Amino acid sequence: MKMLINVAESVVADALRGMAAAHPELTVDVENRVVVRRDAPVAGKVGLVSGGGSGHEPLHGGFVGPGMLSAACPGEVFTSPVPDQMVRAAAAVDSGAGVLFIVKNYTGDVLNFDMAAELAADEGIRIAKVLVDDDVAVTDSLYTAGRRGTGATLFVEKIAGAAAEEGQPLEQVEALARQVNESSRSFGVALSACTTPAKGSPTFDLPAGELELGVGIHGEPGRERRAMMTSREIADFAVNAVLDDMSPRNPVLLLVNGMGATPLLELYGFNAEVQRALTERGVAVARTLVGNYVTSLDMAGASVTLCQVDEELLRLYDAPVRTPGLRWGV
Amino acid sequence: MKMLINVAESVVADALRGMAAAHPELTVDVENRVVVRRDAPVAGKVGLVSGGGSGHEPLHGGFVGPGMLSAACPGEVFTSPVPDQMVRAAAAVDSGAGVLFIVKNYTGDVLNFDMAAELAADEGIRIAKVLVDDDVAVTDSLYTAGRRGTGATLFVEKIAGAAAEEGQPLEQVEALARQVNESSRSFGVALSACTTPAKGSPTFDLPAGELELGVGIHGEPGRERRAMMTSREIADFAVNAVLDDMSPRNPVLLLVNGMGATPLLELYGFNAEVQRALTERGVAVARTLVGNYVTSLDMAGASVTLCQVDEELLRLYDAPVRTPGLRWGV
Repeated sequence: MKMLINVAESVVADALRGMAAAHPELTVDVENRVVVRRDAPVAGKVGLVSGGGSGHEPLHGGFVGPGMLSAACPGEVFTSPVPDQMVRAAAAVDSGAGVLFIVKNYTGDVLNFDMAAELAADEGIRIAKVLVDDDVAVTDSLYTAGRRGTGATLFVEKIAGAAAEEGQPLEQVEALARQVNESSRSFGVALSACTTPAKGSPTFDLPAGELELGVGIHGEPGRERRAMMTSREIADFAVNAVLDDMSPRNPVLLLVNGMGATPLLELYGFNAEVQRALTERGVAVARTLVGNYVTSLDMAGASVTLCQVDEELLRLYDAPVRTPGLRWGV
Repeated sequence: MKMLINVAESVVADALRGMAAAHPELTVDVENRVVVRRDAPVAGKVGLVSGGGSGHEPLHGGFVGPGMLSAACPGEVFTSPVPDQMVRAAAAVDSGAGVLFIVKNYTGDVLNFDMAAELAADEGIRIAKVLVDDDVAVTDSLYTAGRRGTGATLFVEKIAGAAAEEGQPLEQVEALARQVNESSRSFGVALSACTTPAKGSPTFDLPAGELELGVGIHGEPGRERRAMMTSREIADFAVNAVLDDMSPRNPVLLLVNGMGATPLLELYGFNAEVQRALTERGVAVARTLVGNYVTSLDMAGASVTLCQVDEELLRLYDAPVRTPGLRWGV
């Protein structure tokens, strides 16, 4: 498998150097692997810290900036960052108003953020945590006890980020983040496996002519394999899987997310089918985001995330955001 | 080859339906295949129209909006749109101040935009045209007489779009677009071929362990094939190819563009090497853009575009833009 890299060992450091060069509005600490918004800590405002394995870009580093994350800690590819990174990030962004850790539900991330929360508390930083576990495909998996955290992470980071930017207190930012997670469900499909730099070959074996329904963002197995389906059939399957697990009475935010290697042309076409399926099920879509946001390296495929929103969540979603990966209203 | 589509015949129409659903701020005419900013025509302002084969998204439809294109005409995949689309787009955006056609240098596009310019003139619309031909890799190719138009299209559309938004007259917007093209050079590499929906198999055969240096955005052959190179070596090759053809005295805009299937993690790492190579050659970078902007379906690879800017071009580049694919300052 060919990659645009030097050596596997330096992939994350190289990417951080390139991110630093492209984004002078961020402080990128390449050595310690922390990406921080340049104006942190912001007086009187709660800091938001997330992180996880690399390979899901723009998540999380690309979501650092006014209106979203205060800092991100990238681990090695598909590997949790370590507590030291998280504590360093918390210290960099804490203005005294406290810090919220946004943690995708993978065993390594959960353990390391737990440890970091203790260490940061020892340093006098007030820490709250929220777990993201939106993926309805499977319960328990290769990397997870319970459900996996996937596309809803974007909505949690966006909405909690807007609340923090407004100066809402830690308890309220935490409660909002929890509400967003509880209001969100996701389902993903893979048309191809991804290849990590360290392994150099596909992480799983997906035969020609088959797709994986319910795949995770590291290529973890899903619910089942089937003969290749049309965009329409996949949209129906994904929407049904999500709606089997939630019954939105309010409008939803819709994320039609590419896994990395699926062309935008196909993602837009898939969005048309997802919207049709939602309309048939009586679900109103308030906002739609189509693109590669929570990726899995070079995996082909897509995921669908719905987040049920009330007026307040929608207002916070629409609030200005200025990050490399998501930007509007400013 | 698996794709997230219904049938090859409906790929473009499906994508436009999905685009319409995701972007209420655009008017998407699915039947006639024209994407127009919703507030067009804007009184007193020059209209900017571009277009070309689909498969390069977000180019061009994703660059429609305030501060960039007024309208885009998507053709079938890798196939020029037809004059009817272009005339319809020109009529939709002309406020009386005239319309600039921005044409990538491919034989079909050039012929069709020429014909459209005559037809639009017959309808009383003042038309100017600018040709984009920035790719230094080859002269003449499968689709082209002269050089191909690739990454510089983004800079031409952005800077001419800002000038039009300010109310600059047609002659001046045209002159700026021409200046941007003449100040820009690009070079691309492919690590894999792309697959068109109609063909269903890779457009060319690239053996394992080799890369194509100087590839076009339709997978047209480049300068040569070599055994796979590191990110550092590819950056040196691309930067040298570009700088063999231009000697920037001023700072440059840098676009490190993904061809579609290369992960953002790798693109950022590649950016670090491109910046190093430019520093070694004494070239100052004023602004950097890293991401998938001028793509080639699911091709893996990247391109490097430099655009030498004076203070005025830089000011126009920095001006607010609000499109699905490029957005800042608003």
